Amino acid sequence: MRGELGNPRLLRVMNERRLLDQLLDHGPASRADLAKATGLSKPTVSAAMAGLEADGLVHLVGEVSGRPGPVTSLYDMNARAVHVAGIDIGRDWIRVAVADLRGRFAGRRDGRNDARSEEDLVARVRDLTHAAVTEAGLEWPSITYAMVGSPGVYDPEAGRLDLASNLPGWGSPGLLDRLRTALETDLAIENDINLAALGEHAHGEGKGKSHFALVSVGTGVGMGIVINGELYSGARGAAGEVSYLPAAENLAPDQEVLEHGLTETVVGASGVVREARAAGLRLETAKEVFGAAAAGDPLALAVVEAEGRRIGGLIVAVAAVLDPEVVVLAGGVGRNLDLLGDSITARIAELGPLRPTVVASTLGDSGVLLGAVTRALGRAWDVIFTGRRA
Amino acid sequence: MRGELGNPRLLRVMNERRLLDQLLDHGPASRADLAKATGLSKPTVSAAMAGLEADGLVHLVGEVSGRPGPVTSLYDMNARAVHVAGIDIGRDWIRVAVADLRGRFAGRRDGRNDARSEEDLVARVRDLTHAAVTEAGLEWPSITYAMVGSPGVYDPEAGRLDLASNLPGWGSPGLLDRLRTALETDLAIENDINLAALGEHAHGEGKGKSHFALVSVGTGVGMGIVINGELYSGARGAAGEVSYLPAAENLAPDQEVLEHGLTETVVGASGVVREARAAGLRLETAKEVFGAAAAGDPLALAVVEAEGRRIGGLIVAVAAVLDPEVVVLAGGVGRNLDLLGDSITARIAELGPLRPTVVASTLGDSGVLLGAVTRALGRAWDVIFTGRRA
Repeated sequence: MRGELGNPRLLRVMNERRLLDQLLDHGPASRADLAKATGLSKPTVSAAMAGLEADGLVHLVGEVSGRPGPVTSLYDMNARAVHVAGIDIGRDWIRVAVADLRGRFAGRRDGRNDARSEEDLVARVRDLTHAAVTEAGLEWPSITYAMVGSPGVYDPEAGRLDLASNLPGWGSPGLLDRLRTALETDLAIENDINLAALGEHAHGEGKGKSHFALVSVGTGVGMGIVINGELYSGARGAAGEVSYLPAAENLAPDQEVLEHGLTETVVGASGVVREARAAGLRLETAKEVFGAAAAGDPLALAVVEAEGRRIGGLIVAVAAVLDPEVVVLAGGVGRNLDLLGDSITARIAELGPLRPTVVASTLGDSGVLLGAVTRALGRAWDVIFTGRRA
Repeated sequence: MRGELGNPRLLRVMNERRLLDQLLDHGPASRADLAKATGLSKPTVSAAMAGLEADGLVHLVGEVSGRPGPVTSLYDMNARAVHVAGIDIGRDWIRVAVADLRGRFAGRRDGRNDARSEEDLVARVRDLTHAAVTEAGLEWPSITYAMVGSPGVYDPEAGRLDLASNLPGWGSPGLLDRLRTALETDLAIENDINLAALGEHAHGEGKGKSHFALVSVGTGVGMGIVINGELYSGARGAAGEVSYLPAAENLAPDQEVLEHGLTETVVGASGVVREARAAGLRLETAKEVFGAAAAGDPLALAVVEAEGRRIGGLIVAVAAVLDPEVVVLAGGVGRNLDLLGDSITARIAELGPLRPTVVASTLGDSGVLLGAVTRALGRAWDVIFTGRRA
């Protein structure tokens, strides 16, 4: 980098980026305000702002008069100059958000994942993204970068998604190229729960935390880890794959248990349904079991209590390895901390002296999308400025 | 920092440190070589070297003649100008190393830990350190900084050591001050297994690795974690306290199990002895059990196989959370990877698709000491230069 500092084009782009960051963080400002805040000279600021304005990245938002001296023009970032997409692909739902440069959702579409093949699924993602772009009032494609969250671990060398057993058929080699073609934009794929942790760090219970873990219990069981304020994904991207934590329950280690992992098999939503049916409840989904428990059904309450104890064991395992400042519980099952909390706390106390702080995510179904948009924006800035530097 | 750059004394100290780092990393050099390697001017180098020589931190080690021009003086860091101590306090042994500025051990003493009180233990540590200082050919105390490794987690606010159940009575408030008084030097206390991970990073199987975990199985069970090349100790210093990982075995959760943790109770050395005796072997220590297994005793081999399976489960738990590049096994039990390896590998395969790389530490009884000395040297440099800056 230092060797390029003599490059005036690069220097101009760096100054432009600094000015945009200032506007993003602090809102509208005059050129004189910007010069003061950034330490750049007034002529440098004026030249850079003229370039950014010509490209539509900043715009005039008002004028301040009544002060001594001439009328002052106020500029702001034009958040609608660039849009990104966040895409959350789950076994039951596909969710898409289109967001502006401030990360505000301008379009959002959720649809059932009833795809029967990868081809179907890619088409479904395209349709939902198209609808979200239209809702945002944009022409198709108009997306500078898309970040796709999916279960599993993307292997860049093989071009394949591993450990995504909840989405049969999904993740064969070349998937990334097929998605790029369908969405007509550059994109990347990242583990959905890692993105949920980023969403939590940007907007939720992980805000301001250096070290925390987001544990998601739903159809799947997974964890996203933030260490020193950054996503930690391990040596091969498999950090937080806690579905494979050994579990106390003795299960026949059949092929399905092996693929999903012992912990996912007993702690995930299907484990809750299995227990409920074994208890004689005629319920089809974990959501129904929690609904029945909330309504006071004693059998459902017992199932939920047992689930809380299993989640308590999982949290102790996470705390014994990572000692996070907080464990954020998310996912269709995990978010029911009101019903699960007492048995989680009781089980933690039974297992020893560790006392991790446990809170529920408040981001609902948007956690993965918020993380995906956060990460897509980071990439979009690089795309914008790489373009401007050329 | 930037604000102090105008301070000539600070600038001189920074230059001196840079020159010492250069000598430490690359060995003897002339002042002209040093100027070339550091980018500092020759007069700056000469003035700084004169200061360092006056303080005994560098010394003349030879002269190069036969080249055109005048005879050239070669300087080197005087590694014996400063010494540190690394101290490893375990339930059975206390080990002390006195090392020079290059980290080379100049004195080493190991003694049984037969102390019956904290007072006894502090006295024992002082005696061993005294002997190691004498062996190094130094006057007492002659130690610039000492780093003490101990089981448990030091709580700086309470001034107390928590979770050190293997050393009854050890770690009451004020311990650090009592150690400082006894050893007549500044010191700090750090979890022993964290120091072992640092030792492994500096000198062993963790060398050059960004992310790895050292799992120690002996009297206690613990883990040290390196992430992005740095020790990771969690929000409260309790990262890696895997003795408290829930274990598959159903144990009566009595007070002792709670204190030591389920995993330590079943995986640690006492668990091996318990199993051996249950199998009818009249052996007293895990070392004897491994000795019998190495000699081919079928009962001991079965006990070792079961232990390997439990360690395999522990390693899968670590891999599911951290996905390290490598898991380094250490400790009196864990180092027997030759005998444990097959059953560890078999158990890992049974538990799912994760395939962590497992290697044995080759640092033997010195891992904690090497890490303690590494960390003590880092602190000693700060002490030296804080002194020179004043």
